[in-house]
Amino acid sequence: MTLTQSRRSGGRAARHALRSAPLAENVRPVRGGMTGGTLKALSDDEVLRIHKAALTVLDEIGLADAPPSGIEIMVNAGARLGDDGRLRFSPALVEDMLGKAARNITLYGREPAHDLNLSENRVHYGTAGAAVNMVDAEGRNYRHSTLQDLYDAARIADRLDNIHFLQRPMVARDLPDNLELDLNTLYACGTGTTKHIGTSITEPANAQACLDLAYAMAGGEDAFRARPFVSNSNCFVVPPLKFATESCQVMEACIRGGMPVLLLSAGMAGATAPATLAGAVVQAVAECLAGIVYVNAIQPGHPAIFGTWPFVVDLRTGAMSIGSGEQALLTAGCAQMHQFYGLPGGAAAGASDSKLPDMQAGWEQMCSNVMAGLSGLNMVYEAAGMHASLLGFCHESLILGDDIIGQALRCLKGIEVTDETLAIEAMREVCMGGPGHYLGVGETLARMETDYVYPFHGDRTSPKEWEENDKPDLIAGARARKEAILAMPCRAALNPALDREIRARFPIKL
Amino acid sequence: MTLTQSRRSGGRAARHALRSAPLAENVRPVRGGMTGGTLKALSDDEVLRIHKAALTVLDEIGLADAPPSGIEIMVNAGARLGDDGRLRFSPALVEDMLGKAARNITLYGREPAHDLNLSENRVHYGTAGAAVNMVDAEGRNYRHSTLQDLYDAARIADRLDNIHFLQRPMVARDLPDNLELDLNTLYACGTGTTKHIGTSITEPANAQACLDLAYAMAGGEDAFRARPFVSNSNCFVVPPLKFATESCQVMEACIRGGMPVLLLSAGMAGATAPATLAGAVVQAVAECLAGIVYVNAIQPGHPAIFGTWPFVVDLRTGAMSIGSGEQALLTAGCAQMHQFYGLPGGAAAGASDSKLPDMQAGWEQMCSNVMAGLSGLNMVYEAAGMHASLLGFCHESLILGDDIIGQALRCLKGIEVTDETLAIEAMREVCMGGPGHYLGVGETLARMETDYVYPFHGDRTSPKEWEENDKPDLIAGARARKEAILAMPCRAALNPALDREIRARFPIKL
Repeated sequence: MTLTQSRRSGGRAARHALRSAPLAENVRPVRGGMTGGTLKALSDDEVLRIHKAALTVLDEIGLADAPPSGIEIMVNAGARLGDDGRLRFSPALVEDMLGKAARNITLYGREPAHDLNLSENRVHYGTAGAAVNMVDAEGRNYRHSTLQDLYDAARIADRLDNIHFLQRPMVARDLPDNLELDLNTLYACGTGTTKHIGTSITEPANAQACLDLAYAMAGGEDAFRARPFVSNSNCFVVPPLKFATESCQVMEACIRGGMPVLLLSAGMAGATAPATLAGAVVQAVAECLAGIVYVNAIQPGHPAIFGTWPFVVDLRTGAMSIGSGEQALLTAGCAQMHQFYGLPGGAAAGASDSKLPDMQAGWEQMCSNVMAGLSGLNMVYEAAGMHASLLGFCHESLILGDDIIGQALRCLKGIEVTDETLAIEAMREVCMGGPGHYLGVGETLARMETDYVYPFHGDRTSPKEWEENDKPDLIAGARARKEAILAMPCRAALNPALDREIRARFPIKL
Repeated sequence: MTLTQSRRSGGRAARHALRSAPLAENVRPVRGGMTGGTLKALSDDEVLRIHKAALTVLDEIGLADAPPSGIEIMVNAGARLGDDGRLRFSPALVEDMLGKAARNITLYGREPAHDLNLSENRVHYGTAGAAVNMVDAEGRNYRHSTLQDLYDAARIADRLDNIHFLQRPMVARDLPDNLELDLNTLYACGTGTTKHIGTSITEPANAQACLDLAYAMAGGEDAFRARPFVSNSNCFVVPPLKFATESCQVMEACIRGGMPVLLLSAGMAGATAPATLAGAVVQAVAECLAGIVYVNAIQPGHPAIFGTWPFVVDLRTGAMSIGSGEQALLTAGCAQMHQFYGLPGGAAAGASDSKLPDMQAGWEQMCSNVMAGLSGLNMVYEAAGMHASLLGFCHESLILGDDIIGQALRCLKGIEVTDETLAIEAMREVCMGGPGHYLGVGETLARMETDYVYPFHGDRTSPKEWEENDKPDLIAGARARKEAILAMPCRAALNPALDREIRARFPIKL
């Protein structure tokens, strides 16, 4: 460490020089795939108790309503079909299928720079959901969401460093036909960003067309199967402990078509799952373990994300309370279960119950986002832009969410402890005959790049500067950035020849 | 667990009946003094390395600028005074004084219901700071803070369940005379709330008068010494590694007067502390260990809070960034150091850089508040109402902060795992011949009281209900509550005879 005995103005000039150069990717202080895990909402013993309870649930209660194809697949694999129509799974069968399940998977982007490595406690944040409204933040209004809104969200997400994937966050309500909806959802997401995208095919009859479109966008089926840049979110269960027949049929088609699946169990603690947080986790784990049996009975090692997404309701009213502390704990606990199984996992965090991007939205979005990251959750779904307990999506909030997630990533990165960072020599130089402060110290300038995250919209000015800047409004700033992003060329557009070909084959409405 | 096979409407009626009864204190889902500790930003080895580095710093670099009285006290205890005027402390001396230091202390309220037990990882949230402005949230304006503002903050804090103590959060700028300021600060805090209060005496000459006022409010010196309801925040160091001469003299007077002290080390990482987070923690720990030597050399076992409050600056501008992820990590790391020493500890969290109670304020205030709680920090200072990097205090934000802290407390409470909460029997009953949902289940209703925190201002309505409610504004709601609280009688007023006596003896301006 070199002590530059510059005066403060010299330090300021140096800092200015440093920050005028954009940071290289490899020294950015935060990025997707950083490793969390310092938060353990559950003890090791509690994790084991939840696992054992889930095994008991699968062995003794099992799941109802599997489609005939699923019953055949799972019974052939060793599941027992009871007289009550429920499929039950022995602990041995579950353990056997866990042995076959895909681990350390990669979710591919259309561009390799956006590949997601879902191993260990690596954390990635992205959008998700099925909001049916767009939030007009400045007009304080809700309106139906459209295909254009979805495409704009994809284009915005493409420009935000801390949004690592784009699962479709809202439903294009201007497309009442389900096949057109499914195809255009895929097209809008996949041509708005080159990051990994997630979709959710609405019915089994649409699966092949969607696979065909994905193949076409990838340049052929082989190319897609080599680097599938789309995963499908399957709400394959209707909690408590029932398979969702149609969604299972979609899932079977996706597996055979080479598309990674998200095994999504979205029980509501207090309504469709036990009101106790532990019970809600047990049920979600049991359901996803059944999903692991299902997937690996079809295709051993097919990439599947263990999607325990327990939600929580406000027990006074029955309303969902996605922004609550209970929700943050459920998600944090689930992350530990994923790590216990060594499986790639995902859950929901970062959404708000507030209708607008206000202070409530800020505290709710940060609470679960930071706890999910600290817990080492591989895939943090719904992490930005979601309001009204998942009923509304807001572009300005998506943009501000990039700041929130950057901060959450900084927190999960933790405190680096080395001989150098302990800084004894720096203290000695500064205090014993040195300048008595660390402002111009070379180490300080170096740390500016590697240790500190700077918000894009978060305002750190003094009250005086803030007044001189005409008291900038956070939401107005996000809107201006949105307009600037949407005025830029779309980096994810397909090449024109391919795009023409796709438009000739599929009813693209964008 | 009993399964009530009621229809949903029956469950709703039961829920309504339950929530119409106020919760008894012993079943409230969250309260002050709950135990955190599931977040470990530092590994055990890292904690030890920081401790050893701090010992090296004290032994080799030491601290400058102790007052003559402090030099005498600490040299008599075994510290070495160097030719350079710095006091150095051997590891053996530090360990010896750690053996004498007070542990498991109680910070008393004027009412015993508000006593704070600072043992283990018990967490309490409260205000603190020295803001010089009041934030007019709806008018988007800053103005100088006054004694009335401070008194109002105390009265508001008295009515907020999740504000567990009131350290004076702002400076009464309408009192230019320091003695009047000190006396009226103490009076305004101590007659606005019966919770434990913290003050910060500005100069040594004022210490005895403040002690006399505290004794008078308590009903006599013996009564105060038995249950000191006031602690004094001592910025006893000017980092890096210098004693603050006058503040040390105040501290000596407080110790002799029976007032607990907060040993506050407030370095700024990147300016008055190393830019590395680990280095900033080392320096703060070293400074507070010097404080432990100082306090226990005067009065072994005198109650002192280990106040490592490292702050952080935005290295681009030199501005403080109290709302950053770096700040949350510093505070979380410090909580672990307090636990390593087994000492009562405090640090700063929950403040925002934003000028207004907007979305940025929400995400910043939650980030460090929840991480401080999860880390098991005994005293979370600055936890509500603080804006503009500690330069502004906002009553509406204080009120909304009660919701934020309630949620943070729910998070640190964690996930209860027992045979009952694992809920296997509930799943069996609900799924196998039962109603297929958990809405009317007796367990669900019971959990409503003990497991779930309900925000006062946080809005969970659907977009439709929200529109029907005329789209309520969060800040306007907080302002209405502020006005309602300030219209209530003050529960903390002294009895009239005592109050008259105090007003006769001291220049009370309120």
